[in-house]
Formats: sequence, C-alpha cells, structure tokens
Amino acid sequence: MKYPSTILNLIECFKRLPGIGEKTAERLALSVLDIDEETISLFSKSLKDSKTKIRRCETCNNLSESETCEICKDKSRNKEILCVVEEPKNIILFEKLNIFDGYYHVLDGLISPIDGINPEDINLSNLIDRVKKDKIKEIILALKPSVEGETTSLYISKILEGTGVKISKIAHGIPMGAEIDYVDSLTLEMALENRRYMD
Amino acid sequence: MKYPSTILNLIECFKRLPGIGEKTAERLALSVLDIDEETISLFSKSLKDSKTKIRRCETCNNLSESETCEICKDKSRNKEILCVVEEPKNIILFEKLNIFDGYYHVLDGLISPIDGINPEDINLSNLIDRVKKDKIKEIILALKPSVEGETTSLYISKILEGTGVKISKIAHGIPMGAEIDYVDSLTLEMALENRRYMD
Repeated sequence: MKYPSTILNLIECFKRLPGIGEKTAERLALSVLDIDEETISLFSKSLKDSKTKIRRCETCNNLSESETCEICKDKSRNKEILCVVEEPKNIILFEKLNIFDGYYHVLDGLISPIDGINPEDINLSNLIDRVKKDKIKEIILALKPSVEGETTSLYISKILEGTGVKISKIAHGIPMGAEIDYVDSLTLEMALENRRYMD
Repeated sequence: MKYPSTILNLIECFKRLPGIGEKTAERLALSVLDIDEETISLFSKSLKDSKTKIRRCETCNNLSESETCEICKDKSRNKEILCVVEEPKNIILFEKLNIFDGYYHVLDGLISPIDGINPEDINLSNLIDRVKKDKIKEIILALKPSVEGETTSLYISKILEGTGVKISKIAHGIPMGAEIDYVDSLTLEMALENRRYMD
C-alpha cells in the first residue's frame, strides 16, 4: 500500500525543489490537502505561468513578464550608472533598501572554469554593448565575495579597460554589529586590506 | 520594484505551506524557474488533482482516489483485527514495515477539548459501526503518546466496553538504541509502568 498517485506525484514534485528531502516532501504534499481551493488553484496556475509568462528583460536580463522589465521601463532613474549583479533576486534586495537609483545588469552566474562556466556564458557581451550604447559612466560590481565573484569582477574590469567607464566594487569587510572574533579569516583579511584612513 | 506577479503569487502560495517562511518561500519560488517543464506541468496538475481526485475511503477514512481505498479492497488481509490511527500517513509507516496484516481505521484527529475537538468530531461512530458489522475481534490503538492520544485511547476503550472486542494499545517506552539518560521523564515513567517480567 502506498499513497494515492496524486499524493505520490506531489511528493516527487516537492522533492525536486532545493533543500527538500523525502520526509519534508511527504509532509508538504499532505499539507496541500488542507489548503483552500482558491490558493491551490492560484498555486497551480502560477506554476504554469512560471514557464509561459516569465522571461528575461531584453535590456538587463532581470526577470520580467514583458520584453522590458519594470526598472528598465522607469525613465526617471540615473542612466549613467549600472549595478552588475549575479541574479535577479539581488536586485530585489537593493530595491527594498532604496539605496540605488541607477539601472542594473544581471549576469547569468559567475565565471567558474571548474563548473564549466566561462566568460562567454554569463551575459557579458550584452554588458559591453550597453556600456558603449548607453554612455554609462560608472559601473558598480555587486558580486559575491567568493573566488568566482572576484574572478568575474576582475574579468569585467579588464574587458572594460580603456572605455573610460569608472568601475567600483562594493566593500567587503566585517558586517555591522558582528563580533570580530566570529568573522572568518578571509573576511578579516579583506577588512584589513580595505581599511579606510580616518581624517 | 518587486518581482513579476507570477513570482509574487508563487511566494504567497509557498508561504501557505507549514514551516515555510518568507525567505524560504522566495527561494523556492525562484527555484521553480529552473525546473523542467514536464515536472512543472505534473506539479500544477497534481495540485489541482489534490482537490478533485483525493477523497476519503468510505470504510476506513484513509486517503483514496476511489470510494474504497486499496487496503480495504484487499480481501486477503485479516479482517478480525483493526488498527486505529490518527492520520492517513500513519498507515504508510505500518505498511512500509510490513508488520500488520489487518485493516485500519483512520480517526479525524484526537480528542482535545481545549482545541474544541470532541469525541463526535473524530469519526468514532463509524468505528463502532464497523466493530459491530464486521465482527472485529481485536482493536489495536496506535495513537500518539500525548495527553490527547491517551484521552482518545481511553475514550475508545470505554465506548467499546461490553462489545467483547479485545482492545490493546501499542507499547510506549524507551526507543531501541536510545540512551536512558536522554529519555524524557514521561517516557521513562511509561517504560517503568509497562515493564515486562522476564520468564
């Protein structure tokens, strides 16, 4: 005796999501039975829509339901400055904090030769085109402080050499409120290297 | 700027599942974009099916896609013995272990006056009918060792008094392989109370 096939299918589907194992998938599949019909029908429809409606913005590669995303459509922003991020969800964080009013450029991941991800795979030619066409004056690299992030940042600053565009990298260091004792050695090294003189 | 509405809807739906908070819901919703179309279409369909196809077995209250569940349809089992469980998923556990060949009776939860769950709410009249009609000789109560579980077990043994049916409760005690030091006091008390003389 096993579960009815609908439940088995739900378990299989939940298991395909990252971080969800057999036990959790079973619990989630059974919990679906207790959710109201309206939510389930929205859930079912949204899953389908994720394959048909969601696309990438042709300008910045952000998630979008139209050719151009909401941010690129907004003409009131500062068009001389571009923030380069790894994934669409990074944009949401910046926008929530309301700390940046330029435009974004979303890469398709970070350079990682070990994983077979080369410079030509991460939407860089598009970035170069934008820099030239849109007269970008400054690029802020907001990538993960990892080997891949550093490699990608370095590569981008290399390929934009000579274009006259100012390139900066967001600061890596000790997070606010953190105990120095608990910070890993790489972060501490970065924090020391990036020290600022107080005048 | 927020996510496209499809993503926002997915986040809302994932948040309705137990144990899934804002951050995890966002992560899961975005991960949906990376899942193949076939899985997504099965996921979407299964969610819908959960509302239309899944019902309760008219005999034992187990989850089923037809009037009678697979277990109740199986005529080769021992029909004199009934195992009473709280939820359909408890059946799966017993069946996986292949340690019981009678039939089951699934309650609709456990008696809990504090939560407004009274004896008439948990599918007990159906149990009494089955005991009388099917000439059940033994009932095994396999309920949670909690106040609600104990209350429900006691209540069931009371209402079946005089019917001649033998009633037992699965043993509660120290789990195999556990350190006695780490077992809670209630379990230890139960283990002591349910001690068996070695002959």
